[in-house]
Amino acid sequence: MSATKPTATLYGLGIGPGDPELLTLKAVRILQRVPVLAWPAPLEGDGMARNIAAAHIPPGRIEIAIRMGFTSDRAGTEAAYDRAAAAIAAHLEAGRDVAVLCEGDPFFFGSFIYLFARLGQRFPVEVIPGVSSVMAAGAALLAPLCAWDDGVAIIPATRSEAEIEALLRAADAAVIMKVGRHLPKVRSVLRRLGLWDQARIIERVGLPGQRVFAPDEVAELPYFSIILVHRRGNAWL
Amino acid sequence: MSATKPTATLYGLGIGPGDPELLTLKAVRILQRVPVLAWPAPLEGDGMARNIAAAHIPPGRIEIAIRMGFTSDRAGTEAAYDRAAAAIAAHLEAGRDVAVLCEGDPFFFGSFIYLFARLGQRFPVEVIPGVSSVMAAGAALLAPLCAWDDGVAIIPATRSEAEIEALLRAADAAVIMKVGRHLPKVRSVLRRLGLWDQARIIERVGLPGQRVFAPDEVAELPYFSIILVHRRGNAWL
Repeated sequence: MSATKPTATLYGLGIGPGDPELLTLKAVRILQRVPVLAWPAPLEGDGMARNIAAAHIPPGRIEIAIRMGFTSDRAGTEAAYDRAAAAIAAHLEAGRDVAVLCEGDPFFFGSFIYLFARLGQRFPVEVIPGVSSVMAAGAALLAPLCAWDDGVAIIPATRSEAEIEALLRAADAAVIMKVGRHLPKVRSVLRRLGLWDQARIIERVGLPGQRVFAPDEVAELPYFSIILVHRRGNAWL
Repeated sequence: MSATKPTATLYGLGIGPGDPELLTLKAVRILQRVPVLAWPAPLEGDGMARNIAAAHIPPGRIEIAIRMGFTSDRAGTEAAYDRAAAAIAAHLEAGRDVAVLCEGDPFFFGSFIYLFARLGQRFPVEVIPGVSSVMAAGAALLAPLCAWDDGVAIIPATRSEAEIEALLRAADAAVIMKVGRHLPKVRSVLRRLGLWDQARIIERVGLPGQRVFAPDEVAELPYFSIILVHRRGNAWL
């Protein structure tokens, strides 16, 4: 017998923003069929992704925790993805499909991208798109994100004040993510552009402890927080 | 008896980009429970939204087709939403929940926004977020959309060349939507910015007839087409 190319598939499985009911039918079907699951997690415990999908994970699955600290230590993060990629590759080589659980969507700011970069040339990959926290924020705030021919900017609050301002000036609507300790900088730019008073603010969208704030009542925000603004304010007719 | 506030709920129901398996569990549950469904449709036939959800619609539902031509006739469009809002309001007043089927996500370029603008002050509204065609495009192309602290621009190709260029210059990654007859303009901007050769192009994502193109093989595109570009090209490590 000659060596054959591995036929097992690596799935990037979008599981949505937090509500277990926001998994897609396709994600549930794959969860119930795939023998190996991998999920990002903190240094201890199951992590958010596994908790979101928990009700759909059958007993007896092989599970790989991709553990990393909540820091910006790039070298440690890369090493964690290297180790996870090696563990996943071993299962794929042995013919076992592997699904990586991804909060939100796998290819929209998803950590699955770093596993795809390591394994995508070696194994068949299928990505199952998921509901993003961006869309969940609009739904939870009852705030339309964009309409007609709006230009939209998705802006991580970690960017510089000048970069945030350039994106806001070019767009009609904006979603500012990961606000956390960057709130003073973000508020300063939005005030300068006349957008602060209509800002819609939500923390931990779709997760336990979700909270909504008016602009004049927000003092500080956690990392998982989102601000929505629109040049036309809240006028949609 | 005194008049009571209506308690029926208007649902904006995201049903995803086209694959019936990309409905969420929540959308399916609401579809099976709500007595009245409304869906956007062309002047004849069921339209895409109803087709996507068809397998989950129980027999005997009251259905409202929101019919409009595929044109930019603003007055005709407004009149169609006015009529649909009146028909929906009558059911809500009578205590019947109504779910409006929305391709993709209801508040992300969704026509539900125009019904929400007309009815959101009068009735309780709940929005069920859905998988957007933006995320479906990344998945279908096996092309990550954005990572780390990328700034992202979502750009309708209907905008002017200068507006498109301003958004592309401010962002790291971009999703250009509704390309269609605007392909020459979009290609011209992307060439000028050195982004055309790495463009990822897909038409009718998630729908029957989905097709992928390399930049040098695309001659024309239909309205429902998406181009993805990223300043870092396809390097994700």
